[in-house]
Amino acid sequence: MSLIVQKFGGTSVRDAERVMNVARIVTDTFAQGNDVVVVVSAQGDTTDDLIAKAEEINPKASRREKDMLLAAGEQISIALLAMAIEKLGYHATSLLGWQAGFETSSAHTSARIRRVNVERIREALDKKNIVVVAGFQGISRRGDITTLGRGGSDTSAVAIAAAMHADLCQIYTDVEGVYTADPRKVENAKKLKEISYDEMLELATLGAQVLNNRSVEMAKKYSIELEVLSSLAKASGTIVKEKTKMEKMLISGVAKDTDVARISVIGVPNIPGIAFKMFSKLSAKDINVDIILQSIGHDGKKDISFTVAKSRGKEAVAALEDYMVSHGAKEVLYDDEVAKISIVGAGMESHAGVATKMFEALYDAQINIQMISTSEIKVSVLIDINDADKAVKAIHSKFFD
Amino acid sequence: MSLIVQKFGGTSVRDAERVMNVARIVTDTFAQGNDVVVVVSAQGDTTDDLIAKAEEINPKASRREKDMLLAAGEQISIALLAMAIEKLGYHATSLLGWQAGFETSSAHTSARIRRVNVERIREALDKKNIVVVAGFQGISRRGDITTLGRGGSDTSAVAIAAAMHADLCQIYTDVEGVYTADPRKVENAKKLKEISYDEMLELATLGAQVLNNRSVEMAKKYSIELEVLSSLAKASGTIVKEKTKMEKMLISGVAKDTDVARISVIGVPNIPGIAFKMFSKLSAKDINVDIILQSIGHDGKKDISFTVAKSRGKEAVAALEDYMVSHGAKEVLYDDEVAKISIVGAGMESHAGVATKMFEALYDAQINIQMISTSEIKVSVLIDINDADKAVKAIHSKFFD
Repeated sequence: MSLIVQKFGGTSVRDAERVMNVARIVTDTFAQGNDVVVVVSAQGDTTDDLIAKAEEINPKASRREKDMLLAAGEQISIALLAMAIEKLGYHATSLLGWQAGFETSSAHTSARIRRVNVERIREALDKKNIVVVAGFQGISRRGDITTLGRGGSDTSAVAIAAAMHADLCQIYTDVEGVYTADPRKVENAKKLKEISYDEMLELATLGAQVLNNRSVEMAKKYSIELEVLSSLAKASGTIVKEKTKMEKMLISGVAKDTDVARISVIGVPNIPGIAFKMFSKLSAKDINVDIILQSIGHDGKKDISFTVAKSRGKEAVAALEDYMVSHGAKEVLYDDEVAKISIVGAGMESHAGVATKMFEALYDAQINIQMISTSEIKVSVLIDINDADKAVKAIHSKFFD
Repeated sequence: MSLIVQKFGGTSVRDAERVMNVARIVTDTFAQGNDVVVVVSAQGDTTDDLIAKAEEINPKASRREKDMLLAAGEQISIALLAMAIEKLGYHATSLLGWQAGFETSSAHTSARIRRVNVERIREALDKKNIVVVAGFQGISRRGDITTLGRGGSDTSAVAIAAAMHADLCQIYTDVEGVYTADPRKVENAKKLKEISYDEMLELATLGAQVLNNRSVEMAKKYSIELEVLSSLAKASGTIVKEKTKMEKMLISGVAKDTDVARISVIGVPNIPGIAFKMFSKLSAKDINVDIILQSIGHDGKKDISFTVAKSRGKEAVAALEDYMVSHGAKEVLYDDEVAKISIVGAGMESHAGVATKMFEALYDAQINIQMISTSEIKVSVLIDINDADKAVKAIHSKFFD
């Protein structure tokens, strides 16, 4: 007998039919002799509907009250799923975040899980109940309802799996697993059987968001085997774990990220500390910088380019412009018609020439590279946004055809 | 400085505009130097919508899961009201039933309040917060979410008022107070300034449901002064308290109840214990009997007539028919085209002829009386449902014009 944690996102439970579908998956797993803990998100658009209600009344409402409001979403979905499980003739117990023992920090709307007291979950499992837990939510030491922020339900599921030493944590979603490229765009994209935590983390940050990063980090830390699979297709998905058999493969995927903007500061005086001062202006505003490129200085001047999330782009320019120009820079350029294309693979570490192969594919497709960034298991390039899909296809076919 | 508990029902908070309206009432009361605890129901049709979702999935869902589902309704409304209060520049703290200290029995969907630990409410009041409490809900000793059943939010409000020795408990609703008759039907119906707990209790059971009975009983027990008033009209409402100045008035109101059915068992053998056996069949099914009329027996036979709620009528007949007929009764007749018209007033006790005056009004209007029932402060008659409105007008004008 195994202990399996299953997590279902909002689209998987969006209406009565989908809720019944999830109940069937869950009870099938239970009927095979497993203990089952199910973590559920709010139904379909519930969260957005609740946010709209709040916006209409007070767009500047306190975070505490936002959490109180949003947590009602999962409360509805856990009750409905428990009812669906009962309908199929099994015993179910739904538990809110605080009932399931989720103690969090008091950082409302983006709380961190401090610990999970799984006693009530275990008690219900011992009574042969399928336990349905509200994802995304917990309780602070002060006894206030908190939420974990975006993708929080994935994290809730992994946290339970870690606290209970579960044998497997299945993340059901609307895709069938992790692919070598976006299957809607690249015809012969392949579903990966396995992928390592690190590769998954790189893919998640690169816009191929199948799993929330915090949940993958937590799974890695506690060695929780994850499976990403679809709640609609009856097929095995992609296993995420430490060591994979796939490591001989050069790369595990090609990812595209169009939520990116490039900022170039031209003619920066070549004096010590200027880059530090520039980037500290951005970190003061909590703006994350991704790729950084600095030209070799000449005539006492240099150019510094970097990328940020598109949504923070204008703000980043505003934070820098006056300061840099008054300190001798010529101008600050902004371009959000760019895309970041990345290849990820643990195999890269031991294989030379992976980056070269990627560049060759782009050259063959006559695509200009604006910036390059590399890490141990990743190569990213910045290109014109209009070339993005062509670039993904070209690179994918170079490596996988 | 006074402590005032204010309760708002679902229609009072049904949309953003109404929520802001409630926030204005609440903050005005606070700005006048009072401590304010607000108890709110779920918005407008939320509860019905949630029930519909549950019905679609599993009409026979466990009561525990029904409570889990329904309690989400008030969670949404307390968060929205707190946000609206913040919008007006005041501090608000929303609290769920369990956070507000509502310990209840574990009778899901109709739990009884055991006690209210008001520490968290008091703590928030001490910090000059307006406290917004989810009505209708609590927590059992096992840590499960419970709900109090119909009208539960009124009871929640009175329970807080009792536990905190509040100076006043205001029940805001969509009528302006308690009237001498239904103001939509009877033109010159008058709003009462005051009414006693006992009169209010009789009116509530008689279909003039302004306040939930449990809440009035609790208010009486703890001598909590209630005020029934409208959240839309800026007018004082009706005060419900022990002794009223109005007791000199003969009656305080005329009420109509059309949720009633008459059952007559004809030709019951005149032997001891037969009535007991008959009514115990009904109480076994939890069917409440209201008016009972027994004819004087002759030829060893008698007729027994009684009324039940219309929704339980057919069930009552089914429970009795075979048994009574096989024990010698001739037949069981059923009629749900009836209405119960009642007059209520503490003044009756000391004034003879009140019932006579009522019967005279009905006689003048040529309305036939089928059954009569009296208590110390009430006279009820059963008549044809088609005469109901005419009867109310005739009686009202006899006493009040």
